[in-house]
Amino acid sequence: MTADEARRAAADRLAAAGIVLTTEEQAGIEVADFGLGRLDEIGLQLHVYVNTDRYCAKELVLFAGQLCPEHRHPPFDGTPGKEETFRCRTGSVLLNVDGRELELRPGDQFTIPPDTLHWFRAGAEGAIVTEFSSTSRDDLDVFTDPAIVR
Amino acid sequence: MTADEARRAAADRLAAAGIVLTTEEQAGIEVADFGLGRLDEIGLQLHVYVNTDRYCAKELVLFAGQLCPEHRHPPFDGTPGKEETFRCRTGSVLLNVDGRELELRPGDQFTIPPDTLHWFRAGAEGAIVTEFSSTSRDDLDVFTDPAIVR
Repeated sequence: MTADEARRAAADRLAAAGIVLTTEEQAGIEVADFGLGRLDEIGLQLHVYVNTDRYCAKELVLFAGQLCPEHRHPPFDGTPGKEETFRCRTGSVLLNVDGRELELRPGDQFTIPPDTLHWFRAGAEGAIVTEFSSTSRDDLDVFTDPAIVR
Repeated sequence: MTADEARRAAADRLAAAGIVLTTEEQAGIEVADFGLGRLDEIGLQLHVYVNTDRYCAKELVLFAGQLCPEHRHPPFDGTPGKEETFRCRTGSVLLNVDGRELELRPGDQFTIPPDTLHWFRAGAEGAIVTEFSSTSRDDLDVFTDPAIVR
């Protein structure tokens, strides 16, 4: 799967779920392979609705079995780091927070404290997850795998 | 329309839009008539996904022509007051921000600065609007109409 294919497929998944993005927003969907070049296994497609200096909201799309690898959101600018709430919209996602595993299905949500290691992987149908959070600074994310570049 | 009828109708609207709430969440949908007893004209149905000391997210449901009356979110606890982003999901909503009017349709969004007067009214089909924001303190809202109790 190329990044372009992933972007188009993510736009299709969102549309099928009734989540309307503008044409411009669809074209701007970010495809993250974390610098590993194995997008089918390790990757994430995302749309950022808004990211102010107070809050952020994103739509995350994962295809079947796709993993967002272990990372944490460290403190910055006098804040304790990004706090985030995952709300599953479609499919399922296995979420691991500091070694605790839970499965989120549509209607389930979980809030991940700041600076806490977590990873998540989509189930066999893939997943759409809405993320509500404090300000997002993806450039500050600390990944456990030193090979990862965000 | 009674509050119970509004709650059930709002749950139905959300479900029809593909927005999954748990049974408990559906039963907990807040119906606000702002103390005016004219819910069909002036009212709002809402589900709060999360409201931490850093961010908040809600689903707002309005029926055809329903108005959320003019108010602002004043400063509190050393913050400038609630900043909020409205994202229209279904239907349409006329949003008035400090006298500036704009219509939001699915895929449209707008960020309302803190402490800024605004009101909004659903179009003929009603509307579902997702609200992303900083921390919400509804008890502090300042309404222009002195008859309103939130």
